[in-house]
Amino acid sequence: MNHDELFVKMALSAWNTHIQRMNKFLEDFSDEQLYTEVAPGKNRIIYLLGHLIAVHDNMLKLFSIGDRLYAHLDEIFLNSPDKATTTFADADKLRSYWKKLNDILSVKFNQMSTSDWFAKHAAISAEDFAKEPERNKLNVLINRTNHLAYHLGQLQLVKKS
Amino acid sequence: MNHDELFVKMALSAWNTHIQRMNKFLEDFSDEQLYTEVAPGKNRIIYLLGHLIAVHDNMLKLFSIGDRLYAHLDEIFLNSPDKATTTFADADKLRSYWKKLNDILSVKFNQMSTSDWFAKHAAISAEDFAKEPERNKLNVLINRTNHLAYHLGQLQLVKKS
Repeated sequence: MNHDELFVKMALSAWNTHIQRMNKFLEDFSDEQLYTEVAPGKNRIIYLLGHLIAVHDNMLKLFSIGDRLYAHLDEIFLNSPDKATTTFADADKLRSYWKKLNDILSVKFNQMSTSDWFAKHAAISAEDFAKEPERNKLNVLINRTNHLAYHLGQLQLVKKS
Repeated sequence: MNHDELFVKMALSAWNTHIQRMNKFLEDFSDEQLYTEVAPGKNRIIYLLGHLIAVHDNMLKLFSIGDRLYAHLDEIFLNSPDKATTTFADADKLRSYWKKLNDILSVKFNQMSTSDWFAKHAAISAEDFAKEPERNKLNVLINRTNHLAYHLGQLQLVKKS
């Protein structure tokens, strides 16, 4: 395995580990419990779930691997804070979105070649990318993993232990 | 810049971004405020600071780039939960440890060659590394960045906004 393949493997492994942690977290909570705030006055679990779906759904477009599935979530979960609007609050629906999106991303990610991962993402111009080749798809994946870890840290606070 | 150099740059950039976020966080809090819990009954900021120092200090040994500076923190901040012992609680001292450690890690990381980053870390045998070459120093850096992001997510909850 060359270094390129190795690095993609490392970045994907970190991503998958964190997705699995989120899956495990969701299994441990009932739909009703998803309306709990992670700390008094802070975001509810359901909001963070919607927020993560919206952010990850954007990767389909950013990586040019498919059309967005849940763009209608952006207004509620990206552009508005929790409890700002009559929040879309169907826990069951969000759970199924989360699962479907992960299934699709997993298939698409596995189809991407090493050179795909080092290619520019859709939100940077060819000119800028020529100057900053580190702004590739793999870098987005690394950043999204850190973003997911950040929110998992918050979700962990709701747990009993 | 070849792909190897690019990975290292990407991974170091994510690390540095999160260290800077932690620095910014610490600037915004007085020593007294560091004794606040991130949520009711949860870890205090001071504990998370000590925990991050202990985890990052271990990287010196793990990367074979120096002797540990603050191994005495492990007992309190790695092996024990917050408030379990008469906690080492000198905020000023922990701030200076955090700064000194980051200064040293920054210098050492910048001195490491690309092949150093892809080499095995100190906690894996040559035999295991031959089978799992992804268990290299760069992978540790990626994992530690996710770990830092995880705790930054918790610390963010203490902020007013």
